Amino acid sequence: MGRTLTYPKKVSNTANRYKHRGQMGSFEFPSASIDEPLDCYLHGYVSSRIMNLARNCSDGEGLPICVATSKVDGLILSLTPNSHSYNYRSAILHGYATLVTDEEEKLWAMKLITNSVLADRWDHSRVPPDRAEMQSTVILKVKIVDGSGKIRDGGVSDERKDSGNEQVTSSVWTGVVPVWETFGTPIPSGDSKVAEVPEYINSYIASKNSQNRALAEDAVKVKLPAEEQH
Amino acid sequence: MGRTLTYPKKVSNTANRYKHRGQMGSFEFPSASIDEPLDCYLHGYVSSRIMNLARNCSDGEGLPICVATSKVDGLILSLTPNSHSYNYRSAILHGYATLVTDEEEKLWAMKLITNSVLADRWDHSRVPPDRAEMQSTVILKVKIVDGSGKIRDGGVSDERKDSGNEQVTSSVWTGVVPVWETFGTPIPSGDSKVAEVPEYINSYIASKNSQNRALAEDAVKVKLPAEEQH
Repeated sequence: MGRTLTYPKKVSNTANRYKHRGQMGSFEFPSASIDEPLDCYLHGYVSSRIMNLARNCSDGEGLPICVATSKVDGLILSLTPNSHSYNYRSAILHGYATLVTDEEEKLWAMKLITNSVLADRWDHSRVPPDRAEMQSTVILKVKIVDGSGKIRDGGVSDERKDSGNEQVTSSVWTGVVPVWETFGTPIPSGDSKVAEVPEYINSYIASKNSQNRALAEDAVKVKLPAEEQH
Repeated sequence: MGRTLTYPKKVSNTANRYKHRGQMGSFEFPSASIDEPLDCYLHGYVSSRIMNLARNCSDGEGLPICVATSKVDGLILSLTPNSHSYNYRSAILHGYATLVTDEEEKLWAMKLITNSVLADRWDHSRVPPDRAEMQSTVILKVKIVDGSGKIRDGGVSDERKDSGNEQVTSSVWTGVVPVWETFGTPIPSGDSKVAEVPEYINSYIASKNSQNRALAEDAVKVKLPAEEQH
């Protein structure tokens, strides 16, 4: 279960850092894709610190927020340590967070976030949330104003001085070790009377595992001009 | 290869966000474990923005820096959306970064960081770095002044109103889907003449894969008092 560790004893009050479930989406245009303007919806407990901060910012444009994420897709093993790297995808978003007060949008965002844990999970769980759950849950909507992303893909990139050196190339193995997130065999809890793992869960796991693996392996094949950076 | 994406067109100059290879360690006490005071060493190109910023901070205690990381260990599928969660481990460190100028410490840190990509890789690649490589590479040492970590482990945690409701428990499957990082089959580059993947690489991949899987599966078994949070 959840626990918080601090190092050293004290935790700075000046820095706000949180881990919350969240998902990108557009309530106005639910079919909007990743290429279109999306908001970032975050889910949290009513009295958590970030929700209190956002509530107290509600008169302005909202609480300034930074959302960061990254995923490693491979280990780049080159001839010399300097050219070692990772294939990865990373993104940082900056925006302003406000509490979602519209009941319909709040329910929509809760469904969006639950289905981002596992596709179609909302309709297969006990819904709708009751009054107590709606009151104890707060949804933050982050309007994105700025962001950046960085991707590294492709294979090994060594300098001519090493790749043209027979002594080096005959002694050092080079290549890429693809890295991806694997979903394992579901472990049932004691509470449910449903004995078999349902098909929508097994098929989600199977399709994510093959997608994740293909993405990491395909990233190695990407070729870009030689002048691109490591 | 590396490329930077921005959204929208402009990237804010007020926010500094980077992805750099790094590793925790102690140059003074190299055998220090995770329970002892460690510094965070970051690796980067001499003219990258973070290195320029740190260089210009060298008269004070250093460049204030925040390092964040997290890992998902499982999907928590409970009876009701509100109790859905993730098993995860996350950490945030705050500290002050200065450039490592001592040549011996710099080499030590470069070896530490290279071996964090893959164990023992330093001694199996073309070393030592030549003069040009030493000059083009900067190592930042972050003295940690504050930090926090958060772990969520264990199984599903539902409220009595749902776990005691026969209609709910007979229709919703609950449990944990363990999640871990998998290292795939190494994909060789064309440059090296070493045909076989060396044993130290294959054994690293095999041992990481079984460790990662065991960690995600064992996290589900952790039992903590009922009053702990979701």
